[in-house]
Amino acid sequence: MSHTFDQKRKKIDEALAHYLKDGGQEPPTLYESMRYSVLAGGKRLRPVLCLASCEALGKDEDSVIPFACALELIHTYSLIHDDLPCMDDDDFRRGRPTNHKVFGEALAILSGDCLLTLAFEWMAQAKNIPPKFKINAIQEIASAAGADGLVGGQVVDLAFEGKSVTPEKLRYIHIHKTARLIEISVKAGALLTGASKEILKKLSQYGQSLGLAFQITDDLLDVLGDAKKMGKAVRKDAELKKATYPSLFGIEASKKMVEENIQKAYQSIEFLGPKANTLKEILQMVREREN
Amino acid sequence: MSHTFDQKRKKIDEALAHYLKDGGQEPPTLYESMRYSVLAGGKRLRPVLCLASCEALGKDEDSVIPFACALELIHTYSLIHDDLPCMDDDDFRRGRPTNHKVFGEALAILSGDCLLTLAFEWMAQAKNIPPKFKINAIQEIASAAGADGLVGGQVVDLAFEGKSVTPEKLRYIHIHKTARLIEISVKAGALLTGASKEILKKLSQYGQSLGLAFQITDDLLDVLGDAKKMGKAVRKDAELKKATYPSLFGIEASKKMVEENIQKAYQSIEFLGPKANTLKEILQMVREREN
Repeated sequence: MSHTFDQKRKKIDEALAHYLKDGGQEPPTLYESMRYSVLAGGKRLRPVLCLASCEALGKDEDSVIPFACALELIHTYSLIHDDLPCMDDDDFRRGRPTNHKVFGEALAILSGDCLLTLAFEWMAQAKNIPPKFKINAIQEIASAAGADGLVGGQVVDLAFEGKSVTPEKLRYIHIHKTARLIEISVKAGALLTGASKEILKKLSQYGQSLGLAFQITDDLLDVLGDAKKMGKAVRKDAELKKATYPSLFGIEASKKMVEENIQKAYQSIEFLGPKANTLKEILQMVREREN
Repeated sequence: MSHTFDQKRKKIDEALAHYLKDGGQEPPTLYESMRYSVLAGGKRLRPVLCLASCEALGKDEDSVIPFACALELIHTYSLIHDDLPCMDDDDFRRGRPTNHKVFGEALAILSGDCLLTLAFEWMAQAKNIPPKFKINAIQEIASAAGADGLVGGQVVDLAFEGKSVTPEKLRYIHIHKTARLIEISVKAGALLTGASKEILKKLSQYGQSLGLAFQITDDLLDVLGDAKKMGKAVRKDAELKKATYPSLFGIEASKKMVEENIQKAYQSIEFLGPKANTLKEILQMVREREN
């Protein structure tokens, strides 16, 4: 893990722990359940991307921390709900029992609901960002989290469990379920600084290519990975008869697609020079990813 | 139902039908499931309150329609999730089978998630409102929908099912689960017009008293009401051993509390004069409520 990535991740971990610190909030079980999943570690890829794109544009990354943390809340809520028995039915996540295994289904659903809601509260509360920029970011983040993003991707993913999937449909699932939130995490860091359309386009392109590369490596790790390193069950896709890049295209072709997307992402941010070093290092991390 | 209430409700019904119209959006089942619950009728109390408070301040209510509709989405999402088997396990709502009965649990959860997300997207997209006012409203709506509102109320409600509840705890549940979203619906209409602190305070007071009166009549209707008129099961609270105002204080005392809260609400908006007629008519409707 790169030095600058690690610094940013630490910043996010500290901010999340601070915002969610046990301060006797009511109801205690709800906060306990939210803390359990949010403070369980995790790569913090989405919030770090938000800081890194802000930094790449020469702006103060600290001002976007509330938005960065909100993106992690949205990611965490989606994992809690995806893990539910009626969805992917997962027992382990980030090396620990899943939220519903510890707190029960009702509280897991409600914690997810609350994290999603809290994300928008944190975004609205962010200081030192013009309201106009906040509104733009909120709008695009909501779009990437809804029917045309996260939720839509999960709906289609569930609908095709055990069924044969065309490459186009698989791409749809991966883009919506994973790549769009990653893309908007990068784009949000730029929207919040009032970046130009042209810059937004380049950073979105970087985010989308990175998101696809990330999800294809996820598919590859489910085949080739180590459950211990992953902190969750592997070979899960095959078990659920879920289509993946390796199952549709084979392992070698999938690895090649990862590399192509990483190259495309590099090219999109070339023009930013050394300010974009963290964004570049993240591409290298995805290339070498083991969990 | 009052004439002006009815006009506003019609406006909301049309706007919701327009925003959610079947335009081939992907994924179709997700939209079908959202439409099923959102376009199932309902009193539209929250969105009408938002329009009515805007009108009471002499502003153009049409500009706040997206926020008003967003409040109805939040209300609907909370009903879909509350009705799930692991929560209140309800089979009927608004006279029809509940969402999970028709679409299954996974899609019901995801539709709820999507409606909550879409609510924030609609708020961010609203035109002709200064971004600063939009941010203020988004922040307070998120707060009223989260741990310190809707979700928190449901968590405590579930935690006390079948257990003895103090009057303080019951008040906590009612305020959080019902009154806060009603309160913020009124307040939002004022926040979006940039109303003064003093006016916001009065309208919040109106909303909170109305919300409590509304929830106590809800408890009363569960004891005294007619399932056909209600469009959902009655005597449900007793069956689930849920504490209610009638079970703690008796029917007559509960009716008195409704009246006290309605009086308090009247007084809070007296100063607005005839512009607040719709807000007053809503109090009369709660007094005469049968469903």
